[in-house]
Amino acid sequence: MKEPTLDTPGTRNTPASLDQQARAETVMARCHALDRFSEESGPLTRRYGTPALRAAQDEVSGWMIAAGMSVHRDAVGNLIGRYPGNREDAPALLIGSHLDSVRDAGRFDGPLGVLCAVSAVEALHASQTRLDHALEVVAFADEEGVRFGSTYLGSRTVTGDLGERDLALTDRDGVSFAEAIRAFGGDPDAVAAARRDGAEFLGYLEVHIEQGPFLEAAGLPVGIVSAIVGFSRVAVEFTGHAGHAGTVPMGRRRDALAAAAAFVLAAEAAAIAEPGAVATVGELAVTPGAGNVIPGAVRLSLDLRHPDDATRARLRDGLETEARAIGAAREIGVGWRPAYDNGAVPADAAMAARLEAAIAALGLPIHRLPSGAGHDAAALSAITPAAMLFVRCAGGISHHPAESVAVEDVAVALVVLDRAIVGPFSGTD
Amino acid sequence: MKEPTLDTPGTRNTPASLDQQARAETVMARCHALDRFSEESGPLTRRYGTPALRAAQDEVSGWMIAAGMSVHRDAVGNLIGRYPGNREDAPALLIGSHLDSVRDAGRFDGPLGVLCAVSAVEALHASQTRLDHALEVVAFADEEGVRFGSTYLGSRTVTGDLGERDLALTDRDGVSFAEAIRAFGGDPDAVAAARRDGAEFLGYLEVHIEQGPFLEAAGLPVGIVSAIVGFSRVAVEFTGHAGHAGTVPMGRRRDALAAAAAFVLAAEAAAIAEPGAVATVGELAVTPGAGNVIPGAVRLSLDLRHPDDATRARLRDGLETEARAIGAAREIGVGWRPAYDNGAVPADAAMAARLEAAIAALGLPIHRLPSGAGHDAAALSAITPAAMLFVRCAGGISHHPAESVAVEDVAVALVVLDRAIVGPFSGTD
Repeated sequence: MKEPTLDTPGTRNTPASLDQQARAETVMARCHALDRFSEESGPLTRRYGTPALRAAQDEVSGWMIAAGMSVHRDAVGNLIGRYPGNREDAPALLIGSHLDSVRDAGRFDGPLGVLCAVSAVEALHASQTRLDHALEVVAFADEEGVRFGSTYLGSRTVTGDLGERDLALTDRDGVSFAEAIRAFGGDPDAVAAARRDGAEFLGYLEVHIEQGPFLEAAGLPVGIVSAIVGFSRVAVEFTGHAGHAGTVPMGRRRDALAAAAAFVLAAEAAAIAEPGAVATVGELAVTPGAGNVIPGAVRLSLDLRHPDDATRARLRDGLETEARAIGAAREIGVGWRPAYDNGAVPADAAMAARLEAAIAALGLPIHRLPSGAGHDAAALSAITPAAMLFVRCAGGISHHPAESVAVEDVAVALVVLDRAIVGPFSGTD
Repeated sequence: MKEPTLDTPGTRNTPASLDQQARAETVMARCHALDRFSEESGPLTRRYGTPALRAAQDEVSGWMIAAGMSVHRDAVGNLIGRYPGNREDAPALLIGSHLDSVRDAGRFDGPLGVLCAVSAVEALHASQTRLDHALEVVAFADEEGVRFGSTYLGSRTVTGDLGERDLALTDRDGVSFAEAIRAFGGDPDAVAAARRDGAEFLGYLEVHIEQGPFLEAAGLPVGIVSAIVGFSRVAVEFTGHAGHAGTVPMGRRRDALAAAAAFVLAAEAAAIAEPGAVATVGELAVTPGAGNVIPGAVRLSLDLRHPDDATRARLRDGLETEARAIGAAREIGVGWRPAYDNGAVPADAAMAARLEAAIAALGLPIHRLPSGAGHDAAALSAITPAAMLFVRCAGGISHHPAESVAVEDVAVALVVLDRAIVGPFSGTD
């Protein structure tokens, strides 16, 4: 095979070459360009199955095609661009991230990884370079899970982990995931067959913003994800008794929101008391929800994470006990419905080593850190060796319009990715 | 004038005659019959300007016409039936209540008063009795204020207290009150001219369920409202910083919901500590509101009531101080926007005395109690002497589908109302 021309900027003052700087600027410009594909005017919200996501895919698809890729969408609507290798019978290396977003999101969570992957292929294509293995650039269609309260619907289609229970999930408007797939141009009946075999892949590499403050604190542009922490998600419901805000004396109330408020503070206190733990109540809905009516019921989401699975389980069980104690003291019914309990997923050592070698070649220290956020890499690791490269972000801010990364850091990520995707891969290339 | 035939059941074992028992059953059946006019299938929700409210008005209008009333809707859409008196130049007695409801409401809050008033006229009409004064039965179109977060939009149209600021109010879908009036078949430009002069009325009497537990505790079917308590409504906003639920360590969070939760508990504690006070957070909305995003902002409603205006003001100011302290401790911005501060409104002594005399004639004790809920009588009292009769309800439950009154208590209310609407009124009849 013809080896690609790779700058090895570790030998220079600036880690990235002028060429890579220009490529990083293109990646940044494209992240900005995707802003306009939003469900809302103003805030960036791009959930699974929406016209906004479809339009963003069409834009990215154009860039993929220009970079020499053949493009298709699978049964769930993941966008996949394939850049052929010299040996088309060999497994492909999968690289990418996701294009869906949370509500009122930042522009880098997801798109940065997709567009770095596109850029890597673009560079090969520009120099008319083919690797022995094919590259598949994937833009997953649902990583955030906002619309259906789910996890990894996109990447779990690829791993074959999607089932009837997922297809029956409904959004707030009562639309099922199966219906949404169809409306998105996919085919719910073909989702199972869209499953890919692990033997088709060499592995999976994903560039993603850190979404936390640790690389910034360490003064480093990039870091290696050691593991994706486990998380528990629980749907909690407090059921009291609605009543007139003016006429029911305090002593006779069974106010579901007061109970929920006590639980929100209990969850916060429990996470503060356990180093490395985070607990978040991100959704809270009051029924009936009028200013002059005592809340009769509150539904809320609890999200709980810790790098150690046993510690997380203990925290979760402790909070269930607290919720029930709050309910008992206030004569409030407590519903506790675990939605997910996903264990921590360590990075594949050999794939991570490829990223580490590329960082070391730049003369930069290797910084390993756990990911508090879930990522498609966690799903992919079920079928293929997966690893992730984190890019520093300002103030650790993510899931927020103020999400920000520096173009210089993106340039470093491109250099690392360029090097890590080149073979040989053990036993295959 | 011909005096109407009034049973005086105080001289019997049962307070109400068989005839009044039958009338009470009709009132109950009609309250049930209005259930089917709801915005939702199942729960009873009938907000201002909705087809559900219009359909309920049409049903009541039919009963009014059958009872000998001429019916019209005013510019805002209040339904008004007029039963002429012998002296049409004399002021009319206004009796009634409202037909709109909260979300997932009970069936008696409002309709009971309207249908007792219709029944009183029906009884006069059946016996071909005319009073010297006309009777106007009013079914106000917006008392609960749920749709526009307002107070007394219906009765304040009658009193002339509605202004441009009210017309500019918008609902959750961005529809203005002015637009809603038009869609409801009214005319926002004619609202000011729809104002009635106090000289047109002898007074206002309203039958309403107590919505509290005190008459039940006293073992009495009805009671006299001494005053409608004052209430404050405040829109409170906590502004923190949204962030990823998995990646922002607890120590770096500015979680708007945690601050709001602390405030909900502070409001509850303050009201418990002040006898006679009630505090309610009935609405609470989290932004962005996703399970994996730290809440960036929370808007909530505070409803605060106390029979004494000065005590209420002190409580309100104390809670503002608490909200700001919570915000300062958590680096959370606090918005405090008072929406209403309505002082307590005492009942008119002479009008209340008419109700009391009717209760005494039944041989029942007079029980006076403040109303923790606001009522149209509070608005009407600005232009005409107003008083209210409360009817016992089960468990003090209201603003809830379990709202319940006994047919026997309704029969007592009818006897009292029948007697109280008959002249002479001082200086007029």
